Amino acid sequence: MSSSLKTWVNLNGQVMEGERATISVFDRGFLYGDSVYEVTQTLDGVPFMLEDHLDRLAQSASKIGLQLGWSRHDLKIELARTLAPLKTPQAYIRYIVTRGEGEIGLDPKLATRPNLVIIAKELKAYPAEWYQKGVHVIVAGTRRNPTESIDPNVKSGNYLNNVMAYAEATRLGAFDAIMLNHRDEVTEATTSNVWAVLDGMLLTPPLSSGLLEGITRKHLIQVVREQELPFEMRTLTRDDLNRAEEIFLTSTTKRLVPVTQLDQLKVGTGAPGKITQVLRNAYDQHVDSLHAEAAREWKLIQEQANSSKS
Amino acid sequence: MSSSLKTWVNLNGQVMEGERATISVFDRGFLYGDSVYEVTQTLDGVPFMLEDHLDRLAQSASKIGLQLGWSRHDLKIELARTLAPLKTPQAYIRYIVTRGEGEIGLDPKLATRPNLVIIAKELKAYPAEWYQKGVHVIVAGTRRNPTESIDPNVKSGNYLNNVMAYAEATRLGAFDAIMLNHRDEVTEATTSNVWAVLDGMLLTPPLSSGLLEGITRKHLIQVVREQELPFEMRTLTRDDLNRAEEIFLTSTTKRLVPVTQLDQLKVGTGAPGKITQVLRNAYDQHVDSLHAEAAREWKLIQEQANSSKS
Repeated sequence: MSSSLKTWVNLNGQVMEGERATISVFDRGFLYGDSVYEVTQTLDGVPFMLEDHLDRLAQSASKIGLQLGWSRHDLKIELARTLAPLKTPQAYIRYIVTRGEGEIGLDPKLATRPNLVIIAKELKAYPAEWYQKGVHVIVAGTRRNPTESIDPNVKSGNYLNNVMAYAEATRLGAFDAIMLNHRDEVTEATTSNVWAVLDGMLLTPPLSSGLLEGITRKHLIQVVREQELPFEMRTLTRDDLNRAEEIFLTSTTKRLVPVTQLDQLKVGTGAPGKITQVLRNAYDQHVDSLHAEAAREWKLIQEQANSSKS
Repeated sequence: MSSSLKTWVNLNGQVMEGERATISVFDRGFLYGDSVYEVTQTLDGVPFMLEDHLDRLAQSASKIGLQLGWSRHDLKIELARTLAPLKTPQAYIRYIVTRGEGEIGLDPKLATRPNLVIIAKELKAYPAEWYQKGVHVIVAGTRRNPTESIDPNVKSGNYLNNVMAYAEATRLGAFDAIMLNHRDEVTEATTSNVWAVLDGMLLTPPLSSGLLEGITRKHLIQVVREQELPFEMRTLTRDDLNRAEEIFLTSTTKRLVPVTQLDQLKVGTGAPGKITQVLRNAYDQHVDSLHAEAAREWKLIQEQANSSKS
């Protein structure tokens, strides 16, 4: 592996190779999962929907009373500095901000200075098969955290709930797991939102079912409305999914992934559905349409990051 | 602070001062809270109810499919090695075992070698006031994770639920917060079990309400049964607590702490109750009765740890 394809990590402004990136065992992210995070990627070297992801990072932090301690502009400059040594047009990006270190104890006030971690590494292309044949998804036994316990709309370091659901999927050889809430409503998959076509109507669960407001979900709703497709945010049950003509998942790095098997059952014809295909293309076009401006803005950030370095 | 009173950390068998103890940012404990832990202490240099705590560590690990990777005996030897440089009769002890490091991703199989962290530091005596006057506790708005989402009977690195409840308590100047489940049943406080005396009957919620099986809780039930006190494990509501003659909390390091104010209301007379006092004394005696044997066994472990070092 050439050194430029290594993993690079930014620790509070210091960029280093991944193997050297360590954090105190007294960091509250390590002790309690007391942290927030975001994942995105670069396309042709330009961070993808970065403003949306930084908006959501700030929102997650605010919901758990965590002061980010880094301005929006600083977070962009630090990202540019992290990406600089990684010579790949398509990089995986993970921002983590923890509440910091302090005496051991639940009280959030024991830590006063957040720790910023940015991870950047090559993002390999996903298998074409996922998109051509679709994937097998299960409905997990593990239920999604309720909003009143740990809000699924906070992207935090408390991810064991999803880890356990994902482990159920891999035990069955499945691609991912859809999680229900305690009222038996569909919420989301372990790292993506869920969509279904039922009686010709495109549906996705409302935030009130307890799920993360996906950035792909948000943009796709915009695309769907522009195209005037029949669409509703509606509470979904497992039965609804069993009857669906089409199902697909959405996430930032994977975009739209058709689901062609749910538990033991074929979804629709067992091949990716027509509406899914139409939306995949429309979403790709939507993404392309945003690229030019994002690239212009990112160039400015890169220039500032370069000049601040020298 | 003399150097012997520093915090000492054991990282996979290497003992170092706390400031030097760091872990990879790719550790799943840091990324996802994918870890288990235990807290206990030493009394006169002897780890307190160590077998119980190691039993529970193994049980937590088993429930999330985490291979501890260290034998029971190894975990004791490593603890002895961590405590050795800390010259204090009363030390705080925290064991953490994470699922280890690997490629970023929810799949637990991405990590194959667990990371062991043992933290030891001086444990200061708690304020006598807690025990003489009792403490003020609130009922949190944050609900305890349900068993089907993240089992509260797994002591894991996913503790944001409790952090948020505790933050509610500190905002109101309270000592701790009691959490209800989604059926409005009392579960536990953020790091202790809850007990109440109602119409002369000692009560504590059953595990089915969704709570950690506290080691103090388990031992105190034994004491209560030996003393033939009227006792039941019974589902409790907020109303039950409001009507209670006495309330107290139990935890390993704090033992029995009387609660004399619940939200805005005095509990009973507003002073620690009689049954609470009787049980505090009985529990202290129970602890004393276990000490001699634990001390004998610990001496053997210390000798083995010493000889393995040289």
